[in-house]
Amino acid sequence: MDKLLKNIIRECYPYIQNGKVATYIPELAKANPNEFGICTISIDQGTNGVGDYEKSFTMQSIVKAIILLRALEDKGEAEVRNLVGVEATGKPFDAFNYSDQDLKSEHINPMINAGAIALCTLIDGETYREKFQRLLDLTRKLAGNSNINLDEDVYMSEKATGNKNRALTYMLKAYGIINEDAEEVLDCYFRACSIKVTCVDLARIAFILANKGENPITGEQLFDKKHATYINAVLMTCGMYDGSGEFAITVGVPAKSGVCGGIMAVVPNRMGIGIYSPALDSKGNSCAGIKALEILSRELELSIF
Amino acid sequence: MDKLLKNIIRECYPYIQNGKVATYIPELAKANPNEFGICTISIDQGTNGVGDYEKSFTMQSIVKAIILLRALEDKGEAEVRNLVGVEATGKPFDAFNYSDQDLKSEHINPMINAGAIALCTLIDGETYREKFQRLLDLTRKLAGNSNINLDEDVYMSEKATGNKNRALTYMLKAYGIINEDAEEVLDCYFRACSIKVTCVDLARIAFILANKGENPITGEQLFDKKHATYINAVLMTCGMYDGSGEFAITVGVPAKSGVCGGIMAVVPNRMGIGIYSPALDSKGNSCAGIKALEILSRELELSIF
Amino acid sequence: MDKLLKNIIRECYPYIQNGKVATYIPELAKANPNEFGICTISIDQGTNGVGDYEKSFTMQSIVKAIILLRALEDKGEAEVRNLVGVEATGKPFDAFNYSDQDLKSEHINPMINAGAIALCTLIDGETYREKFQRLLDLTRKLAGNSNINLDEDVYMSEKATGNKNRALTYMLKAYGIINEDAEEVLDCYFRACSIKVTCVDLARIAFILANKGENPITGEQLFDKKHATYINAVLMTCGMYDGSGEFAITVGVPAKSGVCGGIMAVVPNRMGIGIYSPALDSKGNSCAGIKALEILSRELELSIF
Amino acid sequence: MDKLLKNIIRECYPYIQNGKVATYIPELAKANPNEFGICTISIDQGTNGVGDYEKSFTMQSIVKAIILLRALEDKGEAEVRNLVGVEATGKPFDAFNYSDQDLKSEHINPMINAGAIALCTLIDGETYREKFQRLLDLTRKLAGNSNINLDEDVYMSEKATGNKNRALTYMLKAYGIINEDAEEVLDCYFRACSIKVTCVDLARIAFILANKGENPITGEQLFDKKHATYINAVLMTCGMYDGSGEFAITVGVPAKSGVCGGIMAVVPNRMGIGIYSPALDSKGNSCAGIKALEILSRELELSIF
Repeated sequence: MDKLLKNIIRECYPYIQNGKVATYIPELAKANPNEFGICTISIDQGTNGVGDYEKSFTMQSIVKAIILLRALEDKGEAEVRNLVGVEATGKPFDAFNYSDQDLKSEHINPMINAGAIALCTLIDGETYREKFQRLLDLTRKLAGNSNINLDEDVYMSEKATGNKNRALTYMLKAYGIINEDAEEVLDCYFRACSIKVTCVDLARIAFILANKGENPITGEQLFDKKHATYINAVLMTCGMYDGSGEFAITVGVPAKSGVCGGIMAVVPNRMGIGIYSPALDSKGNSCAGIKALEILSRELELSIF
Repeated sequence: MDKLLKNIIRECYPYIQNGKVATYIPELAKANPNEFGICTISIDQGTNGVGDYEKSFTMQSIVKAIILLRALEDKGEAEVRNLVGVEATGKPFDAFNYSDQDLKSEHINPMINAGAIALCTLIDGETYREKFQRLLDLTRKLAGNSNINLDEDVYMSEKATGNKNRALTYMLKAYGIINEDAEEVLDCYFRACSIKVTCVDLARIAFILANKGENPITGEQLFDKKHATYINAVLMTCGMYDGSGEFAITVGVPAKSGVCGGIMAVVPNRMGIGIYSPALDSKGNSCAGIKALEILSRELELSIF
Repeated sequence: MDKLLKNIIRECYPYIQNGKVATYIPELAKANPNEFGICTISIDQGTNGVGDYEKSFTMQSIVKAIILLRALEDKGEAEVRNLVGVEATGKPFDAFNYSDQDLKSEHINPMINAGAIALCTLIDGETYREKFQRLLDLTRKLAGNSNINLDEDVYMSEKATGNKNRALTYMLKAYGIINEDAEEVLDCYFRACSIKVTCVDLARIAFILANKGENPITGEQLFDKKHATYINAVLMTCGMYDGSGEFAITVGVPAKSGVCGGIMAVVPNRMGIGIYSPALDSKGNSCAGIKALEILSRELELSIF
Repeated sequence: MDKLLKNIIRECYPYIQNGKVATYIPELAKANPNEFGICTISIDQGTNGVGDYEKSFTMQSIVKAIILLRALEDKGEAEVRNLVGVEATGKPFDAFNYSDQDLKSEHINPMINAGAIALCTLIDGETYREKFQRLLDLTRKLAGNSNINLDEDVYMSEKATGNKNRALTYMLKAYGIINEDAEEVLDCYFRACSIKVTCVDLARIAFILANKGENPITGEQLFDKKHATYINAVLMTCGMYDGSGEFAITVGVPAKSGVCGGIMAVVPNRMGIGIYSPALDSKGNSCAGIKALEILSRELELSIF
């Protein structure tokens, strides 16, 4: 396994050249495009990490999976479905997902910004600080890593420049989809996007999702089995932005990417994968990361189709 | 003239039944749908007012013409055109005027909310209070009425519920069209919309626009002649929301309506008209007001086509 | 007048460089970009032509004004308004003017292709040959030129390559807006676009529209006065494609352009203008032609605003 | 298994009331809404059919999976991907999938009409009759049923009323995506949609797709293994129209529905399912059919997530 991963890193390294580090948030622009790490976790093979698999980066959109899980656990499927739909939108992650029409819950989904922001309001907690703390705690618990924390610089950078997210949030308010204080909700969302993880953390979270919420080592059920199914299904149809359809063909497993360059991939019943390489393609997915998953999927026959 | 106007009021009164008072801002919902007034001003006929022509109401979108004029006078045509386009958008006044594409200046125009909000940033003044004061002063000067003032209740109501305008403003910031503090700009815009006028005030402002910026009584040139042409042209193509095309055929003069139920109509070289009747059609224009202008245009051959 | 026009031709000639001859119909691509002619007709100045004002070119979109007039005369305003709306669409002339929504009459207008095609069905005549003949006869009558005829090569070229218009026509059928045989309707439309005129012809047609349907020399009323108003109003709001708003400010008169490079401009109660220069700007309007109209409007104060 | 299926039929029968038979093609409107059949095929359980599982109906959109397979087998993945994309469009199956923008291959996918029509051009064959014959032969081969044939009445009805598909086809031509004769291509597509199958046929086709192209009984590889993966992935992200996201959560297997009321569901490595019940929900999917698949998936744990 280790050898396979090393070969993949070597083979995919040139693909870094095809991409560019995200720059729309100033702090993200500081990422080193040459970093590249992979970590896989499976029952039979244990944990394998190569390259920069212990380097940390912020979750960005990957945290949408955690927000969705937190909301499902706190309020249940019915309330979540009532607030946000689940259809692919055919629009970029930060698109104003409509034209001329009233915005409705069915027009947004948990994997686009508007949907994830809306879901923050469903998390239990008196204050948005509490809600965020519940998100952070869940991330730590799933990753089995109590040291996971916020990247303050990225958080401040997101907060200072997140006007598109502000526009989306006020639009949600204008259409009565949420009624909370916009800056409070956004603060929770910006913090969530700034949670710092490594490939190991992502692989562990993915491994729990692959095992339907159960920690296969301890046997502990960390969350409701059917919420894992819910999340994996949403990741499959909408997890890779506008590249979700292509990814379903070439890799064939549920996954979520972020503009940080991370990808968390869930191989149901088999494996959790975390990848990091910050140079992105035009759709916002890690160039080398996607290529690596393609090879890994082909070599290990990971596709669920 | 007085008799003609009285006949028109009588004939158009039933059209009030076809409309509804705007409710999206709570304070506007309090308007009395049965109020109906007209005032016309021309050199040969002087000032004629019938019905509720001295009742006051807030300008709402009608102030967009004043904002455009203030920006043109303060910064000139080039800078204004650089910030906002002039094409009809084919979209409702508060639409997010695009889909998937980057928002550009050419996608917004001064008669839709996003354009008018953007133009507030071009008004001279150290602070947004000063900018607003310049708008108010210009309105008073054009109407020859130093008593024109803010309706505080409507202003507070707009400010409290204007989330769609907030969303539009943050979108303008997200796309780099404006860089100012969103709440400051919005405060200026909400105040502008809440300026309280009567049909007489609107007719006087329209009369000055009809005379290319000159006060025909005093002979004083209140603003640049070519800015009158600019504004009248924009009112013709985009002044009546999605009803501008129809209005060009049936009435045939530049005009601007507001969700307050007011309409300001400019008959180039001839007449200024102010109308008020708060029951609106589905496009946001005063039902009885439009009908009254149709008859007035037909009787006096006002159409410029 | 002659001298003014000659100066304008000289001053505007360099603007030809900014544009390109239309190529989407092979025959149009053969136009000579350096041709440039103007003709004006007014009561006090008579007919003045300079440059290539006697060169002939096909009407293309300019014929939409004739189609609209023919339909208005044959079926009346109510039936025309029932079939096509009059609002600016904010879309290019050949756009599929909607997204996700059912196509409705109010979404199309007589100055976009779909609207003009639909209006062909309203022309009197047993067959589409007869309908086209009525269009041709009307064009001849308005221009006072019985030699006006079809350009067979352009017509064949349009017919062979007009798949976007075919798509639009089948869409009109799919939504029940028209029920006629698509190829028959299209044949009439393609023929209409291929009617060959000169600047003099356009100026004469415009002059009749400017005089509300009356031939000012003979005193004969060629068509209903209110149909002239209808057409001039539609030309003002939608006649210059996506440049209609800008044109209203800089020139300020109703006008219709075509991808042939012709512009027909109507100065109500004063003048008819025909211009030809086939190099087009990005919006499909003649570069030198628009510039010439700007100067003419400024020099003669033609703007109706 | 038989008992489970009978219980499901009983439990889901009332859901027929929630739907309506498709009426946009006159022949389809004649379907009996009360028909309801299911057939499942798996290695361990063999073939099980209950209710109207031997009633025949036309494939409609379900044939898109066969068209995609035929094109993949005839021209290979690269050529197919070059012609049509694979992303979910967020639009209805027959939507004009764009606004203002040029239509590009990446905007269409094989599960929407425009994509399937375009793919017909990639099928081998001198004439469109030959191409269609290859589609029919493939359907017969996959279903192991040489009696599968065209429903002439539905075909004639589709051809007579398919103006939206005509519009889509001319649009494909207008943007240079296809260059073939529109009516020839459409004839092939209309014929394909009119192929008549039963639940047993669909279950058999699905079973082959579930077994990656291998007939598990004979061991024969009917088509390239990686084309099965390709198709299953596309069905997962786009097979159930605008209900694909919801279906991924509640059922969790690749599937394709048609406006005939049929659904073909592929459970990778396990099972093929054919369902028929013509009363459709607002998204065009069989009401009772979807409910039946939800229960079947829950009872047999079919979800791949």
